[in-house]
Amino acid sequence: MQLGVCYYPEHWPESQWANDARRMREIGLTRVRIGEFAWSRIEPEPGRFDWVWLDRAIETLHAAGLGVILGTPTATPPKWLVDSMPDMIAVDRDGRPRRFGSRRHYCFSHAGYRKQSARITRAVAERYGHHPAVVAWQTDNEYGCHDTVQSFSPAALAAFWVWLAERYGDVAALNRAWGNVFWSQEYRSFDEIDLPNLTVTEANPAHWLAFRRFASDEVVRFNQIQVDILRALSPGRDITHNFMGFFTEFDHHDVAQSLDAVGWDSYPLGFLESFRFSEEDRLRYARQGHPDIAAFHHDLYRGCMRGGRWWVLEQQPGPVNWARHNPAPLDGMVRLWTLEALAHGAELVSYFRWRQAPFAQEQLHAGLLRPDDAPAPAYAEAAQAAEDIAAIGPMSAAAKSVALIFSYDSDWITTIQPQGAGLSALWAAFDAYCALRQLGLNVDILPANAPLEGYAMCVVPCLPVVPDELLAHLAAFEGPVVIGPRSGSRTADFAIPDGLPPGAIFPAKVVRVESLRPGLVHPGQGWAVRRWIEHLETDAAAELVADDGTVACWRSGNRRYLAAWPEPDILAPVLQSAAREAGVDTVALPEGLRLRRTASHVFAFNYAPTPVAIPDGIGGRLVLGEKLIPPAGIAVLTL
Amino acid sequence: MQLGVCYYPEHWPESQWANDARRMREIGLTRVRIGEFAWSRIEPEPGRFDWVWLDRAIETLHAAGLGVILGTPTATPPKWLVDSMPDMIAVDRDGRPRRFGSRRHYCFSHAGYRKQSARITRAVAERYGHHPAVVAWQTDNEYGCHDTVQSFSPAALAAFWVWLAERYGDVAALNRAWGNVFWSQEYRSFDEIDLPNLTVTEANPAHWLAFRRFASDEVVRFNQIQVDILRALSPGRDITHNFMGFFTEFDHHDVAQSLDAVGWDSYPLGFLESFRFSEEDRLRYARQGHPDIAAFHHDLYRGCMRGGRWWVLEQQPGPVNWARHNPAPLDGMVRLWTLEALAHGAELVSYFRWRQAPFAQEQLHAGLLRPDDAPAPAYAEAAQAAEDIAAIGPMSAAAKSVALIFSYDSDWITTIQPQGAGLSALWAAFDAYCALRQLGLNVDILPANAPLEGYAMCVVPCLPVVPDELLAHLAAFEGPVVIGPRSGSRTADFAIPDGLPPGAIFPAKVVRVESLRPGLVHPGQGWAVRRWIEHLETDAAAELVADDGTVACWRSGNRRYLAAWPEPDILAPVLQSAAREAGVDTVALPEGLRLRRTASHVFAFNYAPTPVAIPDGIGGRLVLGEKLIPPAGIAVLTL
Amino acid sequence: MQLGVCYYPEHWPESQWANDARRMREIGLTRVRIGEFAWSRIEPEPGRFDWVWLDRAIETLHAAGLGVILGTPTATPPKWLVDSMPDMIAVDRDGRPRRFGSRRHYCFSHAGYRKQSARITRAVAERYGHHPAVVAWQTDNEYGCHDTVQSFSPAALAAFWVWLAERYGDVAALNRAWGNVFWSQEYRSFDEIDLPNLTVTEANPAHWLAFRRFASDEVVRFNQIQVDILRALSPGRDITHNFMGFFTEFDHHDVAQSLDAVGWDSYPLGFLESFRFSEEDRLRYARQGHPDIAAFHHDLYRGCMRGGRWWVLEQQPGPVNWARHNPAPLDGMVRLWTLEALAHGAELVSYFRWRQAPFAQEQLHAGLLRPDDAPAPAYAEAAQAAEDIAAIGPMSAAAKSVALIFSYDSDWITTIQPQGAGLSALWAAFDAYCALRQLGLNVDILPANAPLEGYAMCVVPCLPVVPDELLAHLAAFEGPVVIGPRSGSRTADFAIPDGLPPGAIFPAKVVRVESLRPGLVHPGQGWAVRRWIEHLETDAAAELVADDGTVACWRSGNRRYLAAWPEPDILAPVLQSAAREAGVDTVALPEGLRLRRTASHVFAFNYAPTPVAIPDGIGGRLVLGEKLIPPAGIAVLTL
Ligand SMILES: [Zn+2]
Ligand SMILES: [Zn+2]
Ligand SMILES: [Zn+2]
Repeated sequence: MQLGVCYYPEHWPESQWANDARRMREIGLTRVRIGEFAWSRIEPEPGRFDWVWLDRAIETLHAAGLGVILGTPTATPPKWLVDSMPDMIAVDRDGRPRRFGSRRHYCFSHAGYRKQSARITRAVAERYGHHPAVVAWQTDNEYGCHDTVQSFSPAALAAFWVWLAERYGDVAALNRAWGNVFWSQEYRSFDEIDLPNLTVTEANPAHWLAFRRFASDEVVRFNQIQVDILRALSPGRDITHNFMGFFTEFDHHDVAQSLDAVGWDSYPLGFLESFRFSEEDRLRYARQGHPDIAAFHHDLYRGCMRGGRWWVLEQQPGPVNWARHNPAPLDGMVRLWTLEALAHGAELVSYFRWRQAPFAQEQLHAGLLRPDDAPAPAYAEAAQAAEDIAAIGPMSAAAKSVALIFSYDSDWITTIQPQGAGLSALWAAFDAYCALRQLGLNVDILPANAPLEGYAMCVVPCLPVVPDELLAHLAAFEGPVVIGPRSGSRTADFAIPDGLPPGAIFPAKVVRVESLRPGLVHPGQGWAVRRWIEHLETDAAAELVADDGTVACWRSGNRRYLAAWPEPDILAPVLQSAAREAGVDTVALPEGLRLRRTASHVFAFNYAPTPVAIPDGIGGRLVLGEKLIPPAGIAVLTL
Repeated sequence: MQLGVCYYPEHWPESQWANDARRMREIGLTRVRIGEFAWSRIEPEPGRFDWVWLDRAIETLHAAGLGVILGTPTATPPKWLVDSMPDMIAVDRDGRPRRFGSRRHYCFSHAGYRKQSARITRAVAERYGHHPAVVAWQTDNEYGCHDTVQSFSPAALAAFWVWLAERYGDVAALNRAWGNVFWSQEYRSFDEIDLPNLTVTEANPAHWLAFRRFASDEVVRFNQIQVDILRALSPGRDITHNFMGFFTEFDHHDVAQSLDAVGWDSYPLGFLESFRFSEEDRLRYARQGHPDIAAFHHDLYRGCMRGGRWWVLEQQPGPVNWARHNPAPLDGMVRLWTLEALAHGAELVSYFRWRQAPFAQEQLHAGLLRPDDAPAPAYAEAAQAAEDIAAIGPMSAAAKSVALIFSYDSDWITTIQPQGAGLSALWAAFDAYCALRQLGLNVDILPANAPLEGYAMCVVPCLPVVPDELLAHLAAFEGPVVIGPRSGSRTADFAIPDGLPPGAIFPAKVVRVESLRPGLVHPGQGWAVRRWIEHLETDAAAELVADDGTVACWRSGNRRYLAAWPEPDILAPVLQSAAREAGVDTVALPEGLRLRRTASHVFAFNYAPTPVAIPDGIGGRLVLGEKLIPPAGIAVLTL
Repeated sequence: MQLGVCYYPEHWPESQWANDARRMREIGLTRVRIGEFAWSRIEPEPGRFDWVWLDRAIETLHAAGLGVILGTPTATPPKWLVDSMPDMIAVDRDGRPRRFGSRRHYCFSHAGYRKQSARITRAVAERYGHHPAVVAWQTDNEYGCHDTVQSFSPAALAAFWVWLAERYGDVAALNRAWGNVFWSQEYRSFDEIDLPNLTVTEANPAHWLAFRRFASDEVVRFNQIQVDILRALSPGRDITHNFMGFFTEFDHHDVAQSLDAVGWDSYPLGFLESFRFSEEDRLRYARQGHPDIAAFHHDLYRGCMRGGRWWVLEQQPGPVNWARHNPAPLDGMVRLWTLEALAHGAELVSYFRWRQAPFAQEQLHAGLLRPDDAPAPAYAEAAQAAEDIAAIGPMSAAAKSVALIFSYDSDWITTIQPQGAGLSALWAAFDAYCALRQLGLNVDILPANAPLEGYAMCVVPCLPVVPDELLAHLAAFEGPVVIGPRSGSRTADFAIPDGLPPGAIFPAKVVRVESLRPGLVHPGQGWAVRRWIEHLETDAAAELVADDGTVACWRSGNRRYLAAWPEPDILAPVLQSAAREAGVDTVALPEGLRLRRTASHVFAFNYAPTPVAIPDGIGGRLVLGEKLIPPAGIAVLTL
C-alpha cells in the first residue's frame, strides 16, 4: 500500500514547494493529490490559461519522486463562468438557486456546464495527459457533497422528461407503473410532469424514485464525459473519484463502472457526529470514531467494482472543521486508521491535507503540518504507518467469507417511504455489518447482482427490489442466507408486488408491517424486536421468537428471514447459528476490538478507550504490537 | 347504525367489482363510498367525459344491494386543469406555490377553480343525481388537509379585501378595531392591506384573526356552491363532508350548517402521534389510541349541527402510512372503535379502505383486504361488529348531561397568541373532555350559541370571545357552570375588552395572566397549577387554593372560574363537586376504561393494555361481554 | 437617578393625558419617552403633517413637569411610504422580502428610505427641537430587533460593493485577504461578489465577516444621519438610542460614538428564556431573571462610551408577551431591578410602558397601569423605588476594579465559525462576568481599545482579533491579566495569523484546538474542562491542570491564558488567585446574592428564591434593608 497526501501548491509560495516535496518523501509518502479546486488559477479569465505555475508544481513534485494524482477542477467553476450562464446553478428543494460562494455550485443536467466541464478537462488532460509524474486522475471532487445530487432546476426538469420518455416509452405506461390513477395524478404527456418537490403533501413515491434514479444517472453521465476524455488523452493512468462516507444519493456502483480504482474520503470522527449513532456511542468513541465506520466503507468501496481496487483519497489527520463538535483523535488513531485500510486491502491512503490552510472555509481542518509548517501530531503517525507497512511486508489477500448485499436504490426506496421515522436500508446494512464484525467475521459488501461463488454465507439486510440475478445466484448458493425486512417488498417502480413480499427470495407472504415507536418492544432472551416488525404467512419454521410469541426470525432451508429491524442484538444469535452452519468460526469480541483477517495475517484494532486483550483462539504469531492492545493500538499476527 | 367501506373501483380491474360487492354484503356492509378522487378518470381530457366505467361500477354495487355515497372529485383536479390556469394553485405561508403531484392543490379563493369545481359537480350530479343507488353525496374530501385552508395567493389577497370591506365598511373602522395606531400600522384603504404572512415580526393578531376568519369563510363558500348544485340536481339524498381529527383551521359549525349529516375520519393511532399527547400516553396507548380521541370527535361532530346526525366516513382498519410510527392496533380495536361510534350515536361507520392499494402514496395504509385480496385482520372485526350491532338491537338515545362549549375562533385566537408555548383552546377542550370522561360522564360538545336547556351542567374550557347568546343561555341556566381561563378575554376583533376579562360571564376582573414553563408549578393537594395562572380581582369565593395561596378556582353562585390551565388533575375536584351539585352521578373509572350511556344501555370500552373490571355500581344487565373486560374489549349492559 | 416611563398618547383619548401626567409625577417619575412609533399619526398622508395632537400631548406632559424624550418614528414607516418604494423592504437570508405589517420593515442600505428617514427626523426636530419640554432624543427604536441588521436586498448588495472597494482598494487585495484561491473563489472585480447567503455550503468566513462589518456600518451610517440633524436642530439635548439585551448584530461601540448617553431595554425574564441559560437556571430564576442579566448589560453599556452615561430606556414591569413562557416577576423585582441600575450608575430608568395596551401585538405586555387604568403591581414598586432613591441620597461613583474586554467583532467571528456547536464570544464574556460577580467583584466591560489605567485586573474572555492598542495598553498594565481561548486567533480578515495564535498577547503557540461534545470532559479538582480545549506550545507554566494532565490554564508573568472554555467553575480558581495578586478582596457569595460597590455604598441584591444573608466581612452600615435579605430584597450599606 502506498501513502500519499492532498496538496494545494496554489495556496503556498512557490519557494515552499521543493521543501514540501522533500519532506513528503522523508516520511514515506509516494503519492500527492493536487489540482481539484484550482480552476480560477488555471484559467483566471475566460479562455486565458495559466499553466506556468502548475507546470512548475508538478515538476517539483516529480523531481522529488512523487506520483501525482491530478484532479479535474469541475467542483469549483470560477465566478466568471457562473456569470456567463447563471442558470448553470442548481436549484434546491425549496426552489432557491444555490449561489456561487463556496463549491459544487452547478446543476449536473445543465448542458452548457457539461460542455465547460469537458472543455476544462480536455485542457488539463492535453497539458498533462502524458506527463510522467501523473499516475492517476480524479474526476471532479466528492460528487453530491452538500446535497448537490438533486437539482430542481429547469435544466433538470427538461432532462427528466427525456429520461422518463426513454424509460417508459409512452406516458400511459408511466401512469400504470406509478399507479397514477390514485388521486387523479395521471398525465397525458411527459412534459406535464413536474419535479416532485414542493407538492402539497408527499408526491407519489414512484415519482420520487424515478427522480432519484434520474438524478443518479445524471451524475453517471457527467462523470463519463470526463472519463472518456481522460482515457483518450492520458492512456495508462488510473482514473478514480473520491466518494464520501454514509452517502447514498447516487448509485456508486454505476459510477464505479467507469473507474479503475474507487476512492473514498475517510473522516471517522466527523461521521460519528453525522450518522445516526446513539449518544452513548458518540461519547464512547468521540476520539476514535465508531469501530465500524472506516471498515464498513472500506468493504463497501472494495466491493463497488470488479477487481476491487480502492483507495482512501482523503484520510482525517486530526480535528476537522465541519462536525457539530470537533475533538482530536486519540494519539495513534491516524496510524490505526491507516493500517486498517491496509488490512482491508487499500492500495493507497492519502492524508487530507499536507498543511493546514490558515484562510477560508477549512482553516480549522488539521493537516500533517500546522499552518506554521511545524509537524502536527499526524505527521509522526503517518511516518510510523509507513514504517509499519514496510515491516509487515507482503500480505496475501483475504479469503471470501461473508457477502453482505447493499444496493443504492434500496436506500432511496426506504428513505422515500420509511414508514417508521428515520429507518433506512443504509442503517440496516450498517447494523448488520456491525453485528458480523462483532463476531470477528470478514465481510464483503456487494451489489445485488454480484456473483456469490466462494462465499460461506450471505446477508441481505434490506433489499426492497430483488433483481432476478440475485435470485439466480441464491438459487445456486448452498451456504446460509439471512434476509432482512422489507426485502422483496417493492417492484422496480415502487409498488407492492403481486402475491405480496418478499417474493421468490423466501417462501412466505408478508401480510402486515408495523413500525414501532421507541419503547414499544417485544422482548426476547437477550434481544428485543424494536422499530419494525413484519407478520408472515408461511410454512417456514419460527427460529427466533419473542416472549410474547412474536416471531423475529423465520427459517426455510438454508434461508432465514428476519421479520424485525436488524439491530445487532437480534442479529447476534441469528448470525451465530448461520455461521456455525456455514462452518465459519466466530469469536465474541470484547467491545471496541475489531479483527481483519487476510490469508496470511490477522489484524486486531482496539477502538476502545481502554486496553483490550486479543481473545484466546485467535491464532498466529505477533509481528506487530502486543496481545494486550492499548487504546488506539494495533496488533498484527502472521498465520 | 350502518357499516360501509371506502372503495376505489378505478384502482381495480372491472372483473373484481362484482366479487368485491358480494363480499362487502357478506360481512354486513350496506354502504360504499366512492368517487372522490376520480376526476382524471371521469374527465380524462378537458370536456371529454368517460362515464362508462363509473356507470358500471355504480350499477354493480347497486346490484349487490349497496347504497352509494358519491364524492365530488374536487380535491384532486387533474394536471390538464391545473396547467390551464396555473394560478389556481395555493401559495404557502413562505410564498411558494404548492405544486401539482399529490392532492388539494388548489386555492379556495380562485374564481376560475370555483367555476371548475361547480362544473364537475354539476356534471356528476346530472349523471347520478337520480340514480337509485346513490343515497348520499360527499363534497370534496377533507377540506384543509395538508394545511390547505390558508392560501397566500394573489387570489386570496383580492378576496380578502372584499371580505374586509364587507366586514368593516370603511378602513377607519378597521384601523380602530385592530388598534392599528400601534406601530403605525394604519391603512388608508383596504387595498393597502397585505396578507399577514412574511412580516418582519408577528403581524397584528387582529390581522391574523381576520385572515383566518376569511379563510374559513372561503371554505364555507366553496362548499356551499357544491351543496347548492347537489340539492338541486339530486333531491332526497343526504349531503355530507368528511371532517378531520384535531383539526380547527376552518369553522366546522359554519360548514355543517349546509350539510345533512356531518362526517369525520377517525384514525386513533395516527392522531395519537400527531396531537400533543405525552410520550407516556403515546407508549401506553400505542396500539389502542388514547381512550378519548375517538369519543371526543364523536361528541364534537354530533354537536356540530342541529339534529346531530353524524357519520364516521373513514375508520382506521389497521396500520396507517402517515404517522411517525405506524404500529398495528391491538386485535379487537377495530371492532371496539366501531361499537364506540354506535354508542355515541353514529348512523354510519365506513372503513377506509376496502383493499390496500399496492401503489402510490398510501400503499402502506391497511384495508379490510390485503393487496392480494385475502382478508386483513380488520375484515373479521368488521363482520363481528356487524353481528354485535344486530345483537344489541334498538337503542334509545342518550339523555343530556354535560354540555362542553367549544368554538373554532377560540382556537384561532389562542394559537395566534398563545402567550405560553403551545397552549390552545383545543388543548383545553380536550383536557376538560378527558377529565369529564374519567368521571364516567356523557358529554355533548356544543357551539357557543347552542341552547343549554336540559343539561345538568355546563363546562366552558376556554372561550376568549363570549357571544351574547351564550350569556343569555347561561343566565337562564341553573346547573353548575365551570368556566376556564382566557374565557371572555377578547373582543370579536382581538382586543382586551373594556373593564377587563372575563366580562359578564363571571363577576371578576382578570388583572394579570402568567404562562408558566414546565416545572414552574403551584402544588395543591393531589393537583397542581401548571402552564397558566390568572390573578383575579373579585368578590367570588376561592374554592381551590394551592399550598402557597394561589387560587386555582373561584366560585360565585352556580359559576366557577378556573384560573389555571384546565388539566385533568385540577379539573377532577372541581368537576366532581359541580357534578354533585348537579345531581349527576360520577364514578372514578380505572385507567383506560371509558363509559357511554344511552337511555337504554351502558357501554364500557377498555383501552388499557390489561384487563379492567367494570366498577361496581354501574347498573344494568350484561348483554355483550363480561364484567372483566380484556384489552380492546367491550361490554354492553341494558338498563 | 431619574425615573421615567414610556408613553403612547396616540393610543389613548386626549382626555386621559393630563391625569396620566399627574399620576406619573405623583409616583416620582420625571421623564416620559414618547413618539417613536407615531409616524402614521404625525404624517397620515404623504407630506400632510398633523402636529396638533402631538403639540398638545407634549404641552400636557410639560405642564405636569415631565421632561420628554422624543423618539424619531423611523422604526415604523407607514404603509403609504412602503408602497411608494416597495424595494425599501429588507430581504431575509432566504431571499424573501420582509413585508409591512409589524415594524422595522426597512433595509438600512436603501437610499430612498435614508432620505425619508432624514426628512421625517428633520420635520420632527424642526417642530420640537427647541421645545423646553424636550430634554432628549431617541433615534429610531431598537436597531436590529427581529433580525433586521442584515438585509440581503439589491440595495444592500450595491452598497456592499462600495464598502468593499473602500476597504480593499482593489479586488486582488480582497482575494488575498480572504484567501479566495481556496475553492477558486477568486473575483475579477468587486461587482462579481454576491452576498454570502444562499451558497451551496458555508461561504468563506472572511466573506461573512466583511458582510457583517458592512451591515454594522450601515446601522452606524443610518443613525448618524439622524444624529446630525438632531444636533443641528435641537442643540443642548441629549441624543440616545435604546440598544437591546444579548444582542450583537452591529457594533454598539461604533453607534455609541455618536450618542450622548447609551440606552438599553432591560427585560430580565424574557432574556432568561432566550439566551443560552440551562434549564435549571431557567427554573430557579423564572421569576427573577438570572442574577447577572441586568448587571451585565449595565456594565456593558456603561462602558460603551467615554464618560459612561447610560440609561435604561425600557424596564420590564411585569409579564411580557414575547418569550416562550411569560411568568410574572416576584413581588419586589421591579424595585430591585430599578435600584440595581442605580447601583451600577444609571442616570435614568424608564418603565415600559405606562398603561398596558388592550390592542395589537403587545396587548399581553404589562405596564405600570392595567388596561382599565388601575395600578398594576409595578406601579407601587416604581413609587417605592423613587422613595428609596431619595432615601439613599447622593452616592460616589464606583472605583475601577476589573476590566473585562468585549468586542462585537469577536462575537461575529465566533458565531460565523463556532467550530463547536453554539460557542460564541458573547457566551464566554457572560460566563466570565458571572464568575467575577460570584466573587463579589465590580466589573467594567470595555471595548478592546479602552485604556486600562487604574484597573486592578483585566479579563479578556475571548478576543479573536487583538488590536495593537490593546497590546500597548497591556504592555503598560501591571495587574493580572486573564486571557481566554480563541484570543488572538484571527487576523482582521479572518485568517489564522502567521506564527500561530495567540500572538503577542501571550507567549505561546496554540497548535491545536478541539471542541468537545457535552459529556466529553477532562475533570479537575472541583472543575472540568468542557466544550473547548487548546493545546499550547509554550514556556509558560501550567497553572491549572486536569487529572489527566490536560492544562486548563497557563501562566507567564502577570498574564494567564485559559485554554479551556471559560465557564464559571474553571474560572473561579483562576480569578481568585489573580484577584489575590491584584490585591482585590473577593468573597464567595451565596447563590443568588450579588453585590455592587460604589465608593460610598455597598448594594446587595437577592435574586435567590429564598432569604439570603449578607456575608460577614462586607463592611458598612445598613441604610436600607436588613442583613437577612428576603427574595427580591435589597440591602444598602454606607461605608
Ligand atoms: Zn465533502
Ligand atoms: Zn387527510
Ligand atoms: Zn425588541
